Amino acid sequence: MTDPLIPRRDLDFLLHDWLRIEHLTAQPRFAEAGRETVDAVLDLGEQLAVKYFLPHYKAADIAEPRLEADGVHVLPAIGTAMRHYAEAGLFSAGFAEELGGMSLPYVVCSAVFADFAAANVAAAAYPMLTVANARLIATFGSPAQIARFARPQIAGEWFGTMCLSEPQAGSALSEIRTSAVADGVDAWGARYRLTGNKMWISGGDQDISANIVHLVLAKVAGADGKLPAGTGGLSLFIVPKLLEGGARNDVTVAGLNHKMGYRGTANCLLNFGEGGGALGWLVGEPGQGLRQMFVMMNEARIGVGIGAAAVGYRGYRHALAYARERLQGRATGSRDGPPVAIIAHADVRRMLLQQKAYVEGALALCLYCAALSDAAQGEAELLLGLLTPVAKTWPSIYGLKANDIAIQIHGGYGYTRDFDVEQLYRDNRLNPIHEGTTGIQGIDLVGRKLLREGDAAMAVLGLRIAATSAAARGETILSPLASLLDNAWGQIVAAAARLRDIGGAAALDNATAFLDAFGHVVMAWLWLDQGLAAARLGAEDRDFAAGKLAACRYFYESELPLVTPWLMPVIAASTVHIAIADDQF
Amino acid sequence: MTDPLIPRRDLDFLLHDWLRIEHLTAQPRFAEAGRETVDAVLDLGEQLAVKYFLPHYKAADIAEPRLEADGVHVLPAIGTAMRHYAEAGLFSAGFAEELGGMSLPYVVCSAVFADFAAANVAAAAYPMLTVANARLIATFGSPAQIARFARPQIAGEWFGTMCLSEPQAGSALSEIRTSAVADGVDAWGARYRLTGNKMWISGGDQDISANIVHLVLAKVAGADGKLPAGTGGLSLFIVPKLLEGGARNDVTVAGLNHKMGYRGTANCLLNFGEGGGALGWLVGEPGQGLRQMFVMMNEARIGVGIGAAAVGYRGYRHALAYARERLQGRATGSRDGPPVAIIAHADVRRMLLQQKAYVEGALALCLYCAALSDAAQGEAELLLGLLTPVAKTWPSIYGLKANDIAIQIHGGYGYTRDFDVEQLYRDNRLNPIHEGTTGIQGIDLVGRKLLREGDAAMAVLGLRIAATSAAARGETILSPLASLLDNAWGQIVAAAARLRDIGGAAALDNATAFLDAFGHVVMAWLWLDQGLAAARLGAEDRDFAAGKLAACRYFYESELPLVTPWLMPVIAASTVHIAIADDQF
Repeated sequence: MTDPLIPRRDLDFLLHDWLRIEHLTAQPRFAEAGRETVDAVLDLGEQLAVKYFLPHYKAADIAEPRLEADGVHVLPAIGTAMRHYAEAGLFSAGFAEELGGMSLPYVVCSAVFADFAAANVAAAAYPMLTVANARLIATFGSPAQIARFARPQIAGEWFGTMCLSEPQAGSALSEIRTSAVADGVDAWGARYRLTGNKMWISGGDQDISANIVHLVLAKVAGADGKLPAGTGGLSLFIVPKLLEGGARNDVTVAGLNHKMGYRGTANCLLNFGEGGGALGWLVGEPGQGLRQMFVMMNEARIGVGIGAAAVGYRGYRHALAYARERLQGRATGSRDGPPVAIIAHADVRRMLLQQKAYVEGALALCLYCAALSDAAQGEAELLLGLLTPVAKTWPSIYGLKANDIAIQIHGGYGYTRDFDVEQLYRDNRLNPIHEGTTGIQGIDLVGRKLLREGDAAMAVLGLRIAATSAAARGETILSPLASLLDNAWGQIVAAAARLRDIGGAAALDNATAFLDAFGHVVMAWLWLDQGLAAARLGAEDRDFAAGKLAACRYFYESELPLVTPWLMPVIAASTVHIAIADDQF
Repeated sequence: MTDPLIPRRDLDFLLHDWLRIEHLTAQPRFAEAGRETVDAVLDLGEQLAVKYFLPHYKAADIAEPRLEADGVHVLPAIGTAMRHYAEAGLFSAGFAEELGGMSLPYVVCSAVFADFAAANVAAAAYPMLTVANARLIATFGSPAQIARFARPQIAGEWFGTMCLSEPQAGSALSEIRTSAVADGVDAWGARYRLTGNKMWISGGDQDISANIVHLVLAKVAGADGKLPAGTGGLSLFIVPKLLEGGARNDVTVAGLNHKMGYRGTANCLLNFGEGGGALGWLVGEPGQGLRQMFVMMNEARIGVGIGAAAVGYRGYRHALAYARERLQGRATGSRDGPPVAIIAHADVRRMLLQQKAYVEGALALCLYCAALSDAAQGEAELLLGLLTPVAKTWPSIYGLKANDIAIQIHGGYGYTRDFDVEQLYRDNRLNPIHEGTTGIQGIDLVGRKLLREGDAAMAVLGLRIAATSAAARGETILSPLASLLDNAWGQIVAAAARLRDIGGAAALDNATAFLDAFGHVVMAWLWLDQGLAAARLGAEDRDFAAGKLAACRYFYESELPLVTPWLMPVIAASTVHIAIADDQF
């Protein structure tokens, strides 16, 4: 293979043959994003990913970020990669022209980003966070804040972080204790002094951007001097590493986390206000912090999904190349023939097809969600909210599982650090954790999206699934799958009704099991939809289409049937894990 | 918790309340292994594991074995651990008294070993391989070979390896090219000179034993000078690192593998005969090598299962301790109460119970197989053959999955190298690969055990399952599970019949899926059987028994139902992965 990244044919298929993004780019705001522009950006992205991100993949794992007296130092090759990413206009690509951007749809930016994540997910995390940070400021900040803090990030000169977690506040953001005290008003708005400790800050310090913009969740003390309880008391602040003129703000790196993988991304403990208070500027109104942060968080969740899909995808590509080269054993039924490449063996073929179904499916899901984000109409927005926990979780689980299989196909070699599949597996293990663990996504899906926000989003999804199913009935080879999809969706609808009947906290007892089942049905729907698009391709795409249809069929034969047992504890409202006493574990 | 190893109560339960090993120890050859002796050995084992194996768990991961001019050096603390293991008589414990041992049943040795594997699986690999090597020589070697090569291993002075794989021969042992040329006869038997390259040799060199006994599979050239084809031409040779008088044999370390985990075990590429031929002595008759090696291999496969179960078990113990300590979030339905330990949250409880079902189940399976090995009668031997691929595979998959969950419970902390769960996950990833990959185990189960060796073993298993099921019908709380087990076993029997109908190479197309389903049904049977033993416990064991029964119920509610979808591609004789062309992936 020329490179282990995502095949261009698949990206073109997903964007044009399947999602038909020309419907999107017909919108006036995307007027500049014609097919030629999209092609050129994809070409450029692949070239840069191969040239500047891929070569230091292993080096960034070995030479971890290190903390010295003057701050955190990362592998210089990451800095070089960032400069090329910026010079190519890839930080700005998704922003409007008045902000210095190219007004590319998010779905196109996401497809380009996937190649960078496949090449080097830890390096790609810097622009992912920076773009999401800048978008938040562009959405909720004042014009002065946008000009001062978003524009340099859109130019790729400054980088951004999101500062939510604290040592005592991981998944439970209501526990945040970082406090903000009013300190007057200046050109950037209401100024505060912040004091507190933030944990798990990706890109929290580094030496590869001219400045760092921290977006910090903190609480403003009330008249009684107490911090408000709950998440409703959270406000959002812009806290730059360097102040005007280059003086250091009162932000200290208290330590670095040493991770299993994903090591190129410096992950920091930051202390704010050890010297009297870090200067920060309020974004929008007080008390809106969590709502604002969720704009960034939702984008980051889809970003995590894309990264997980891309890392899984690259593992598949390595495994496929290895399976074609590695000679071992004889052809089936032949004891005396010459050794064959292991792709000839049934179990290796099964593992390859399983990987293909996982990684191409995961990428399709993320790009579908990105396209929903571009559509930005009521129905698309509703559906995006419902699918975001799936876009975060499904690729994180099945991208990792694909990486696990990639090791297995390599045998002992895959367990050594001489082969990239070893690192891909360690890198991808982060994804089920950050930006909301799988358990948190289950609670989001059941507690918020299903129970609190009502039926509208489920209704939209049901209609889209029905449309795919109806279309598939017109294709002979896909027609049997349509019935399976309808049946599975029926099970989801019934389980959702059951959860509404149970209601309250008990409805969350088996939320993760519901998320597992829901995710697989969504994936089955998208695979059938991909299958429809593949069936429409011309004769010149015969092999490509056959591969898509095989992966689709594999998913329906071996994966979709898992939905029934996964829903059993949901339907039964199983409480075996609740009833067991703590001392009985 | 006092230590993160396997709770003594569970080991006692498995050995005495469940397996009732007093039936075994009533055999004359185990006459010395009364309850007091067993208790004393378990006590001693736990003490040594905590004192000499656990403390350098992390250090052995960081300070990898290194190759210098004089050979491979490993962390000195591993050598210290080995000396204490030897001094305590734990190398010899399972051997007959005439060989210097204590005649302890293998099931007891395995229970003791599990604690060492939990403490430090990479260090524990040295005695595991040494004991298996010595047992092979004791079984097939001449009295002189036993005295010279087995006895020092039984004393823990020399260590052993198994040399099967070569760069071009991993899973396919018929490809072995190491050759042996006759070189006379001496006190140790027929002497040969060996030439070839061996790969993935655990303990292939180190500086912590006085000598190393390599058991090497090689081929003796025929009269035409050619090596015989196939595995029938394989013979087994004893090749010591050092010859009489301390001279080095012609065995060179060509390199070390740098692994994801399991790093304390030096894993070597060995070149035999670079200087004219390594001296080796034939074990038994020529052409019997693979049959002999399978005695060691089958023991190593159960050893891998025990290691995988133990590493998973330790992860569960860490996760449980963390879940009891870590404060995060509020009690269900309470917004204003104090923070609670995360064990209060439904999804954390589900993950803990899932781990418990996996790791206690995996350990039970391995000890059950060890007890079959002790029983050594026709029926037990048949059943052991059928269950060995499950004992190798199921703990390797679900022990690792338990480690994955242990990280998830720790959140971001679990992804850092500051917490042992990170290393446990990396260590355990080896287990689905070595001593026969999961795919190879599926072929062994379906191709050899089901299709070639016929119905007798399945009939034995069916009777034992029926006995458990019948007993469970007499317990109110277990009775509903008995029907589920009967039904699941019926599905396995039907699928096995289907595989026999398909026959030939095509029966192997979905062998791994059958192994998955078969393994889960075996585990369901053993969980119900554990449940029966737990239900018989007295009031003083109320919490312990309730925990066992909850894990059993969890397994029947959330795991056993997966058998039906897993068998679907088996029953359907799915060929989607066979039919896809190589270029269509």
